[in-house]
Amino acid sequence: MSILEQLKKELRVVANLQGTVALMHWDQETYMPPGGGSARAEQLALIESLAHERLVGDSVRGPLSELVDLETGTPAAGLSDEEQRLVAEIWRDYHRAAALPNEFVREMAQTTSEAQQVWAESRQQNDFGKFAPYLEKIVRLKYREIDYLGKKETPYDTLLDGFEPGMTSAEITRLFDEMKERLVPLVQKIAASEVDTHAEIIQRDYDLEKQWQFGMAVLEDMGYDLQCGRQDESAHPFTINFHPTDVRITTRLERNNLMAGLSSTIHEGGHALYEQGLDPEWFGTPFGQPISYGIHESQSRLWENLIALDKPFWQYYYPRLQALFPENLELVPIEVFYHAINTVKPSLIRVDADEATYNLHIMLRFEIEKMVINDRLPVRELPSIWNDRMESYLGIRPDSDANGVLQDVHWSFGGFGYFPTYALGNLYNVPILERAKKDITDLDDQIADGKLTVLRDWLREHVHAVGRRKTASELIEDLTGQPLTARPFMDYLEAKYTELYAL
Amino acid sequence: MSILEQLKKELRVVANLQGTVALMHWDQETYMPPGGGSARAEQLALIESLAHERLVGDSVRGPLSELVDLETGTPAAGLSDEEQRLVAEIWRDYHRAAALPNEFVREMAQTTSEAQQVWAESRQQNDFGKFAPYLEKIVRLKYREIDYLGKKETPYDTLLDGFEPGMTSAEITRLFDEMKERLVPLVQKIAASEVDTHAEIIQRDYDLEKQWQFGMAVLEDMGYDLQCGRQDESAHPFTINFHPTDVRITTRLERNNLMAGLSSTIHEGGHALYEQGLDPEWFGTPFGQPISYGIHESQSRLWENLIALDKPFWQYYYPRLQALFPENLELVPIEVFYHAINTVKPSLIRVDADEATYNLHIMLRFEIEKMVINDRLPVRELPSIWNDRMESYLGIRPDSDANGVLQDVHWSFGGFGYFPTYALGNLYNVPILERAKKDITDLDDQIADGKLTVLRDWLREHVHAVGRRKTASELIEDLTGQPLTARPFMDYLEAKYTELYAL
Repeated sequence: MSILEQLKKELRVVANLQGTVALMHWDQETYMPPGGGSARAEQLALIESLAHERLVGDSVRGPLSELVDLETGTPAAGLSDEEQRLVAEIWRDYHRAAALPNEFVREMAQTTSEAQQVWAESRQQNDFGKFAPYLEKIVRLKYREIDYLGKKETPYDTLLDGFEPGMTSAEITRLFDEMKERLVPLVQKIAASEVDTHAEIIQRDYDLEKQWQFGMAVLEDMGYDLQCGRQDESAHPFTINFHPTDVRITTRLERNNLMAGLSSTIHEGGHALYEQGLDPEWFGTPFGQPISYGIHESQSRLWENLIALDKPFWQYYYPRLQALFPENLELVPIEVFYHAINTVKPSLIRVDADEATYNLHIMLRFEIEKMVINDRLPVRELPSIWNDRMESYLGIRPDSDANGVLQDVHWSFGGFGYFPTYALGNLYNVPILERAKKDITDLDDQIADGKLTVLRDWLREHVHAVGRRKTASELIEDLTGQPLTARPFMDYLEAKYTELYAL
Repeated sequence: MSILEQLKKELRVVANLQGTVALMHWDQETYMPPGGGSARAEQLALIESLAHERLVGDSVRGPLSELVDLETGTPAAGLSDEEQRLVAEIWRDYHRAAALPNEFVREMAQTTSEAQQVWAESRQQNDFGKFAPYLEKIVRLKYREIDYLGKKETPYDTLLDGFEPGMTSAEITRLFDEMKERLVPLVQKIAASEVDTHAEIIQRDYDLEKQWQFGMAVLEDMGYDLQCGRQDESAHPFTINFHPTDVRITTRLERNNLMAGLSSTIHEGGHALYEQGLDPEWFGTPFGQPISYGIHESQSRLWENLIALDKPFWQYYYPRLQALFPENLELVPIEVFYHAINTVKPSLIRVDADEATYNLHIMLRFEIEKMVINDRLPVRELPSIWNDRMESYLGIRPDSDANGVLQDVHWSFGGFGYFPTYALGNLYNVPILERAKKDITDLDDQIADGKLTVLRDWLREHVHAVGRRKTASELIEDLTGQPLTARPFMDYLEAKYTELYAL
């Protein structure tokens, strides 16, 4: 066996350990009885620490050291371009992992598994004080993590790099500023518009079982392979994967909000297509892994927003939806429905936000995360900071911490640096779809015909199967011919909502 | 930390790895999408092999070698009686595991995970030929396993010892012969009886959702803690545990067989009470583990047969069942229902068999397993041998392999030696319940009052929490004052069915 093959085999072991961890998370969020939480945290910590041990242990380090300089990451001479890329990316993961003591990895896993359970209770009981000590512990662990990994431009950049390799907070600030400059006036103009989008249509009583059926039908049409996946319900929708042949999603349906469940189903479906489209031949190696969290979000948000909030999609699906809910929709023309689902209105909850104000939710979180990580803002000050910023960014003040600082799961699993990737996904996906429409000139017609897999196939070839052969910025430049800016996204938003709200 | 504490901590790690394996099995049988099977087999093999590595590795061997002679299992001087018992039992597991090469453990895990999936398909398609090559491979692995472990009285005894420590096939033969001598005439007399038990009452159309509700209510009454457990559906009911705080069961409901689902629910509930009753303080050590498969079966079958096929149970539950299914049961008096659920009739499927003929199904399997293991009977001959024996033991010949040799999952996971423990459970549970009734003189009245937890509490104290502080035979002797015979069970059967069938 060649050294590279040997390395690939070892990485497959690491990936199987990580897949086991993922199964435990999936179970924890779907079916685990509540009493099992403490034992689960212990199990998770064990397997996470074994995965870490294996990744930084001799059996990886040995072959890797023959392929790359372990100190600098420079690939050895004599490797092909592709091999160089591969080993450089493997080294990236190895190097990051090797900086962390195993005891730390274990403590983080156990703490965050427990904290997620406490967070869920705290949110339900609207009790930030209950969650605060866990969050404080996690924040202290993040400080230690940054110490181990080494500070980049700022401490926060170190964490960001774990989600969006190569991205900096300076670059995000630039992109967000560019976005904000046009987004804030746009949202203000929409607020001043006299157009009534009849959002109440979406808030009628929609049978959950029928919502489920409709969502499953869309997933199948998108090309989500249910032989290698499944959908369940959970408090917080997510996608999780153990292997490209087992990629699962969850959703959360609400009787009085038709789009909450459907959007989440399609969003997670977009993530799942990415995972199912990874090359199983390269399972466990960077070439079989998604590029970044931002590119992942570009895939989910492309389907959720650019496709499923657009007219061609509903040309096909609206008659079907009407047939399912005649009592609510029979008398609602498609044009009215289209306006209703595209209502822009500042709201408290990120996951329920429209595609315009959504980005303000992210900017707020980005600001606050930097304060916590770079400026060591005490955790107990988070609720008031959150509420103040909500008021200044969105003009509304949360009525409770459950609808404010406690709404998102991310901090409970230590995911500081994750949020910005959602907005990056919005910025990535517009130029990606523009390129797809250049290649598939009749894409809108195909979608209006219910042929969603045409797009899935294009994304599989140009994004999913690429793996980490390219970075996010390389992918975007290769597909669009230019570096990432906020312009395509803002052009899209302005055009769409100028028409919708007759601005 | 004392050496014993150190050892306990390491065994907890092994148990957490085994709990992870168990979760993967649970998922495989309940929710895993079919395409994920091959990746799952690889993951399972990995974690099984890690669990094995850890159990036989330095971190266990080191402390263990200071507490026990690793060659002979003799505990070191200076240990208390309890400590001696503990380390002897730890050594038993260690010694058995250490005999197996890790590569073998991995191959067995991967092969059996795949084989279980193939078996399920083969049974569905009634295609023994499809399963045969997998079974052949498993049988060859079992031969290797016996070679590694060392042959006891017979090769089959080596496997038996893994399920029922200390039990021999000679002893089982003696017990089964003793049983057969009275069971065969009893079954013949029943067949000749003119009493009509109106079995068709059970085969009316019973709504599945209501069956589920009823089963869940019984489980709760039994004291199955649903904060630390859950019930799902699966093709083959089972109990699985990751920790005493997370013990799950599955059931399989049939519209036209009320007792199939209810019996399986109560059966698995009995297993689950055992696992929930283990002492979490000793998690991972023999004192926190069940005594044997036979004792485990005694707990499931005690609830399934001795309680839930008896009159006091139905005094409480029958009015409730009638209220749930008035269309089927309103006009059926309790005495008639009692006869219907206690119908004895030779049938093809073990899990659907009545409590009398059930044991003949086991004897047949015991005979055949010995032929496969001791006499190397070729796998391809199994279907005809099976059918011939069914005819001679039960007087009926399977119409298909699906209803014959393919009906049970056990061989697909390599469980040769497992079946006899079901019949041992029947033999154990009668004297155990007799003893419980001595201690709780009004037990029947309590049960007739729906107070099932009285029995659960007694079993917890006298059986569940004991762990492996006693062997099966020690437990039975301690509780009943005498060694195990088939007499109490046969006395019970004869008395019950003489009345029922007016023999």
